[in-house]
Amino acid sequence: MGRRSARWDEGAFVVEGRILIEEAIAADWDVEAQFVAPNGEPVAGSGATIVDLAPHVIERVASTESPQPLIAIVRIPHRSVSDLAGARLVVVADRIADPGNLGTMLRSCEAAGVSGVVLITGSVDPYNPKVVRASAGALFHVPVVADIALNELQALRLPLVGTSSHQGVAYTDADLSEPFALVMGSEAHGVSDEIPIDSWLTISHVGRAESLNVAMATTVVVFEALRQRAAR
Amino acid sequence: MGRRSARWDEGAFVVEGRILIEEAIAADWDVEAQFVAPNGEPVAGSGATIVDLAPHVIERVASTESPQPLIAIVRIPHRSVSDLAGARLVVVADRIADPGNLGTMLRSCEAAGVSGVVLITGSVDPYNPKVVRASAGALFHVPVVADIALNELQALRLPLVGTSSHQGVAYTDADLSEPFALVMGSEAHGVSDEIPIDSWLTISHVGRAESLNVAMATTVVVFEALRQRAAR
Repeated sequence: MGRRSARWDEGAFVVEGRILIEEAIAADWDVEAQFVAPNGEPVAGSGATIVDLAPHVIERVASTESPQPLIAIVRIPHRSVSDLAGARLVVVADRIADPGNLGTMLRSCEAAGVSGVVLITGSVDPYNPKVVRASAGALFHVPVVADIALNELQALRLPLVGTSSHQGVAYTDADLSEPFALVMGSEAHGVSDEIPIDSWLTISHVGRAESLNVAMATTVVVFEALRQRAAR
Repeated sequence: MGRRSARWDEGAFVVEGRILIEEAIAADWDVEAQFVAPNGEPVAGSGATIVDLAPHVIERVASTESPQPLIAIVRIPHRSVSDLAGARLVVVADRIADPGNLGTMLRSCEAAGVSGVVLITGSVDPYNPKVVRASAGALFHVPVVADIALNELQALRLPLVGTSSHQGVAYTDADLSEPFALVMGSEAHGVSDEIPIDSWLTISHVGRAESLNVAMATTVVVFEALRQRAAR
């Protein structure tokens, strides 16, 4: 097999399995190459380089024990915080560590029509295969800006609204219909002290403190924002 | 080691790790025995039989690759549908198959103050270690009634409100403040045709149909019910 034009560098990531690759293509992401195991078929319509793999090669590069017979190299789009400046609703993920949590957050952000998601440096890589899988393809449909320093948040030109278990206005009593950026803190540490939060929301709930995780809390707040905005 | 009084039969299940065992004890579940690996310590206060394990035994019985050095046998409480009769809000899980989804549903039900969760026959076992783990201990705090036939639902004496992606009143427009049972259908098949649904809710959202899974949908609706009830 000769030299191919596909680049697998830090500007690209691996997408595993037909369903996710189809989502990437449907959302117009740049699929550079598809690597096809002997029992696989490439997804049509990507214009990507197709590389046939020898038997048992895909097991060595895929992230799961029983990989699907197809992986793709997909280019990471160039985005900056200012692309989201003045958007109606942005979610800022402040060092969210768990891939499953970030994936679920991307799903609820897509479902609630969030304009984009900003990941503060220290968050899990959104192009990690576990995040892509947990997002069920939402990663391809919600603009994500990763590896952002705290002092870049001002470029959003949005009020920064933090969530807290112990301070602020109940999220159900707050006016969530105006543009804002919702800052969700890490599982372990909450919202960083260094983020210049303009106001705080608290998610009033019953049960133990641990009963809601950051992904569920995000889901609850972005859907309340969607509800308030639809009602206006 | 002589014969012990702990019974590990179909009326009991295994709880792995100190944090979950502490939750079981705090919630007054009947811990029959704690099995302690050489580097472990039993949780105090359970009154359970303590069994010291030889090295490497716990790896053979635990469900994870690197188990914590402590597991417990906990008795499943006897509950029936009629225990939830006339409750304010019950969630009926109709053949939910994924342990992570059911665990998350239990968490949001706890957080939203749901009175109990009814699992239709064909749902994943709520005492499966993956469900217990994904519930983050919520299983011990929300009454769960498992393996229920469809014709037992009438014993709830509650209107059965189904959720659907394509029919019914928007959940944000419905009155969720009166007592009802929320029926959440399986990931693959939705709500069973045989359940005599009294009315339908639809979860209006943006994005693709797949963007919300059953656990997130449950979270959204039970928190809207909590919001409406708190506002009254």
